[in-house]
Order: sequence, then C-alpha cells, then structure tokens
Amino acid sequence: MKNKFYAYIQQLQDQICKGLEDIDGKGFFKEDLWKRPEGGGGRTRVIANGKVFEKGGVNISAVHGKLPDSMQKLFNVGEADFFACGLSLVIHPKSPMVPTVHANWRYFEMYDENGKIINQWFGGGQDLTPYYLFEEDAKHFHESCKTACDKHNPEFYRNYKKKCDEYFWNAHRNEARGIGGLFFDYCKETDEMKMEDWFNFVTEVGNSFLEAYVPIVAKRKDLPFSTEEKKWQEIRRGRYVEFNLVHDKGTLFGLKTNGRIESILMSLPPHVQWVYDHHPEEGSAEEKLIKILENPIDWI
Amino acid sequence: MKNKFYAYIQQLQDQICKGLEDIDGKGFFKEDLWKRPEGGGGRTRVIANGKVFEKGGVNISAVHGKLPDSMQKLFNVGEADFFACGLSLVIHPKSPMVPTVHANWRYFEMYDENGKIINQWFGGGQDLTPYYLFEEDAKHFHESCKTACDKHNPEFYRNYKKKCDEYFWNAHRNEARGIGGLFFDYCKETDEMKMEDWFNFVTEVGNSFLEAYVPIVAKRKDLPFSTEEKKWQEIRRGRYVEFNLVHDKGTLFGLKTNGRIESILMSLPPHVQWVYDHHPEEGSAEEKLIKILENPIDWI
Repeated sequence: MKNKFYAYIQQLQDQICKGLEDIDGKGFFKEDLWKRPEGGGGRTRVIANGKVFEKGGVNISAVHGKLPDSMQKLFNVGEADFFACGLSLVIHPKSPMVPTVHANWRYFEMYDENGKIINQWFGGGQDLTPYYLFEEDAKHFHESCKTACDKHNPEFYRNYKKKCDEYFWNAHRNEARGIGGLFFDYCKETDEMKMEDWFNFVTEVGNSFLEAYVPIVAKRKDLPFSTEEKKWQEIRRGRYVEFNLVHDKGTLFGLKTNGRIESILMSLPPHVQWVYDHHPEEGSAEEKLIKILENPIDWI
Repeated sequence: MKNKFYAYIQQLQDQICKGLEDIDGKGFFKEDLWKRPEGGGGRTRVIANGKVFEKGGVNISAVHGKLPDSMQKLFNVGEADFFACGLSLVIHPKSPMVPTVHANWRYFEMYDENGKIINQWFGGGQDLTPYYLFEEDAKHFHESCKTACDKHNPEFYRNYKKKCDEYFWNAHRNEARGIGGLFFDYCKETDEMKMEDWFNFVTEVGNSFLEAYVPIVAKRKDLPFSTEEKKWQEIRRGRYVEFNLVHDKGTLFGLKTNGRIESILMSLPPHVQWVYDHHPEEGSAEEKLIKILENPIDWI
C-alpha cells in the first residue's frame, strides 16, 4: 500500500503542477529535493510571481524511521517504527477575486519490532478560502467534493464537510478560515471499508482536485480589482497565517518535530497585512464574506 | 501594591506615548477603552501611519476575578481569585534602519477564599529587534538595561539578559527574535528582595525605556533605505509573527483565554512578507544580522 500510494502522489504532484502552470500561463514550479536526516525526504515544488499565482507550493514527502517522541505522545503509543507519505498544497493567487486553496492527502503506517504493520490509515482533504464570495464558486467546489465522496459512501460528504468546518475554525477570531470542503483522518480498515477501499476513496478525492479548483480560477482570474480589494485580501491572509501558526495541528507538528521548515511554511502567503481593529463596512461584499465565515452554511 | 503599580503603569503609558509621539512628529495614539466581561478591562493606545512609526501599541490592562482554568493549570493551583495588571508595548517603525521594540511590565496577585493574598509577583522586560545591526545601538540599549538593573542587584543584568535570549528564541528557525534585552518573571518576595524592592526595580526598568529606545530612533529615523532593504524588513517581520504566534506564551495565553484579541494582536507588524527559502547574500549586512541572531552575544 505504501508503495502504491507514494507512486500515486508522485504522479498527482506532476498532474497538479501541470494543471496549475497551464492556467497560470507564465509561472513555473521550481523543484527542491530534500532529505530528512532520520530517514526519507521530499520533493518540494514552489511557484512564485506567476501571472495568476503569487505564491504556492505542491509538496510531496515520504519519511520513515523511529516514531519521534512527539508522535508517540500524539498517538498515545510507545516506541515504534513508522512510515508516512503525503501530498500537501497551498496556492495563494494574486487577485483577491481568486480564492486560496489548500489540499492534503496522506498515508501512515506503524510497525512492531518485527516490521509487521500494527496500524495504518489515510487522511486528507481540501478546502477553499475566498476573499470575495462568489456563491456559484463555493457550490462548484463543494459539488466536486460531494461527487467524489458519493462514489464511495453516501454519508462521507456530509461527515467530512462537517469535520472540515470544525477543523479550520479560527477559534480566537470566532470564524472559519474559509468556506470549507472536506477533512478526514484516521481512515482505518473496517468491515465496510478495506484499506484498498480507502485508497480508492482518497485517490478519487485527489483526482477531483483540479476539476474542483481550476474552473474557479479560470472564471475569476481576469476580473478587475482595486487597491482596496487587494488590501482586504492581504488582511484576510493575516487570518490565514493566524490559523496556520496558532491552530493547525499539521503545521505545529512539523515545526515541533524538526520538519523541513521551508516546506512547512511555504503555506504562508507572500504579502500580508495586520490592521488594528479592522471591520468591513456594513452591507459591503467584505462583510458578506465575514458573515458566512462566522456561520458556515451548506452549499449543496 | 496593586493600586500603586496600576497607578504607575497609567502614568507610564502617558509618558511613553508622549515620548513616542514627540519623536514621531506626526502620528498620534488613538485610545480604545475596553471591559473584560469577567472583571476589569484596559486602555489600548494604538499608533498607525506616523512619520516614523508604521504601527504600534502601548496598552495597559487590569483584570481580576476567578482564576480561569487555563491559568490554574499554568500555575498548578486550584480555584482562586486573582488580580493582574500590566503595560505591554510593541512599536514597528517604518524604516528598516530603526529597530522594532517590545516591552512589558506586569504584576500579579492571587487570593484565598478570605481575600488574603496567597501569592504575588512581578514580571516583565524589554527587547530590541533590529533589521539592520548598528552595534552602537545594541550597546546603548543593553547599557540602559544594565544601568537600571545595577541599581538593584549586580547579578540582575546578566541573569535577565540570559533569560531574554532564552525566551525570545525562535526555536523552529534556530535563531533569536532580536538582540535581546531583559526578561524576568515570578519575581517574588525573598529575604533580600521585598515586594517593595521589586516594585522599585520594575519601575526603574520601566522608567529607563524611553532613554533606551528613543535615542536609537533619533539616530536612525532619517537614514535613507532602498526597496530591497524594506523588503528585508518585511521578511524579518515574518519571523516576528512566527515567534509571537507559535512560541510567545503571553500571546498564546491571551488567545486561549478569551483576551481582547485586537489588543493582543496589535503586536503583529503592519506589512509582512513570506518568501520561500530566502537567504541573504554572503557578506551582506543582512547576513551579519542573521549570524548575531543565531549566536547571541554579550553587548557590554
């Protein structure tokens, strides 16, 4: 399973980078290969100053070795060997009319002293963070998520959409980071879902990514925007930073376990503003977004 | 003691705001009064778009009531009443030639069920974060710290300088946030230091603040700087954000205990950049700064 999933994310990284470069029309992903001293490594691909994308990364990694102390604590287990691989992406477009997108698909294995698998699971998801809300875009993104889910279980979309709203909750601001999507974790073998079924589900979601995001980019990338709208985007990006550095378990985990810092923090936006006590005008498009973020709704 | 110290920080806030307005020459502090639902409140004063200062705040607060769960956990005590007050400031200058400064002086009391004080202590400090290193500025700042300390105990400067380097360590970047200053906490009554002596020490440090910082501002505020130097400042401000949101106990504590978010996050810089895998050129002024941050030195 680990070889099969790692092969999958390698080709998915190629496919997604190609799809994003095509819609950008100017920028290219630059590749960095890196090694983890304790075992494994990764392939970081970063785009900067494209025509559409201001900054972004589509990264894969596969790491293994002794389970670090922090992970033993997290999983509530003792010493063990582990393997983990995944693809993680964050794309920050230049235009405030084009939403930021994040996605991640990952697989984890733990072994006993004889190298036998004692635990294995998938996790992942994808979510959208608009700066201006186009309802049809939100619907399109969520419909893509639902279509991928429905092929595997009629409950998945509803459950994982809810988990996504819960996970990406910027608690200290009392608002969601964005308009959500899917979030699932600890997807382990059950009577109904063998690991093979989870593989099929997770790759289905991964395969749906470009179709979920790129049509939105295509529709919004050439819309005009003002300096004030750009400023609003940069202020909202501040909330993105706050979520990632204060609440995101993945980011904090990486920072505290000696992960590759530049690959982890490639998720942070290029230009960001913090303005003291900023509030959008009543009745404005900016206020409309905030209201949705404060009270996540069903998009389907 | 609590009334005496609160009266002190009220006048200190006036004095510091006045001193910073004078050197800015254009910007003014705008005041927000706020109340804490569970007891107490604060006086937040924020400056934005001054001639010298791009963004900053000088805040005081005095809060009291039942010790929140999170604080019970932090102090390893059960239910109790508490009182806490302090002044906290962060100033982000426009020019990359002028350092950012942070300072905080605070006092804490805890009571038994009869309202008797069962514990009380002072804490605080001040530290400097330059973007370009002028050694004479670093020396001046540390000398001001040492002069204030030496009047009370010949060991204080050395101890609290070390604590400052340790506290403001941006662990995931393996570098200091800035070039340090003083950091002290849990300053409780001993045979040598009565609470009155601690009061005298903490107020001595508070009184030294303007003299430690303003001459540096005066010396650097009119130096020319390039777009590239401004960019470097904004990238370094990213590290400031990372420290405050990932490592700073005060910030995280405020965010997780329902503090006044805007007063807590006024510490975040106005314009910030994250550039993937940015490294200064060999032999440059930027690299010189990094080397000092990676290996904090003695300035006196």
